[in-house]
Amino acid sequence: MISPTFDRNGTESLDRDSCLHMLRTTPVGRVGISVGALPVIFPVNFVVAQADEDAPEVIVLRVGHGTKFEAAMSHNIVAFEADDFDPMNHTGWSVLAQGRSQLVEDPVVLEWARTLPLRPWVLTDAPFFVTVPLDRISGRRFGVHPRAQR
Amino acid sequence: MISPTFDRNGTESLDRDSCLHMLRTTPVGRVGISVGALPVIFPVNFVVAQADEDAPEVIVLRVGHGTKFEAAMSHNIVAFEADDFDPMNHTGWSVLAQGRSQLVEDPVVLEWARTLPLRPWVLTDAPFFVTVPLDRISGRRFGVHPRAQR
Repeated sequence: MISPTFDRNGTESLDRDSCLHMLRTTPVGRVGISVGALPVIFPVNFVVAQADEDAPEVIVLRVGHGTKFEAAMSHNIVAFEADDFDPMNHTGWSVLAQGRSQLVEDPVVLEWARTLPLRPWVLTDAPFFVTVPLDRISGRRFGVHPRAQR
Repeated sequence: MISPTFDRNGTESLDRDSCLHMLRTTPVGRVGISVGALPVIFPVNFVVAQADEDAPEVIVLRVGHGTKFEAAMSHNIVAFEADDFDPMNHTGWSVLAQGRSQLVEDPVVLEWARTLPLRPWVLTDAPFFVTVPLDRISGRRFGVHPRAQR
């Protein structure tokens, strides 16, 4: 058991392993990018995966073609966030990764990406896969501080 | 009944009233901003409200003090997103508002903001309120297209 680290706001900081664990509990996250100088947030299906055992774990997203996001996602600094909240108990967690998104173009990696459980949210064929690195990742858990217990 | 508008991806575009309706169904949204040239997404409690009957409806958020977000949220173009998904049935919706965030400083408006049901996620006192306009709002609903029915 790792002792949680609480900051002065009563929020528990999650270490990298805990962040990755939380990311694996939900299939939906959100990407933040700038499109035409305006910040945009849009939901995406994602998985945490590694192309082979020597490769680093990355976030893999599936993106539809013909969208303005395709260009913005192809080689850009993006924010990726996933969270879950229980409004009744006022508990929750949030994980944020930041890094340069990369369109998957290597045929071998593309073949692997197509095997991932990434069902697109829309009907259209969504043949593009994008990765976001996990080098810069942080997470918080809310409502678990001892002072928050009633 | 308003006839839904489907785009070529089988996604239903939500009109403004539907967007506002969906926003009222969830207490948690996400803000996207740039902090130190890096895009950031963080979850927030929010409500849609109007200070008086002549005022426009706005998104009202509660922000803790001492955070780097306070400065970034005080007068900046931000993205605000809320969504909900049913991974089993593969249905969901997402609403995006974009606009200039404004720190609430007018004492009368501040007094009003303090009466809103905005419980902060963290233990700290979160005395700052921020509004995001709803002039630029868009929304989508997924998995409700006739072609999506099985």
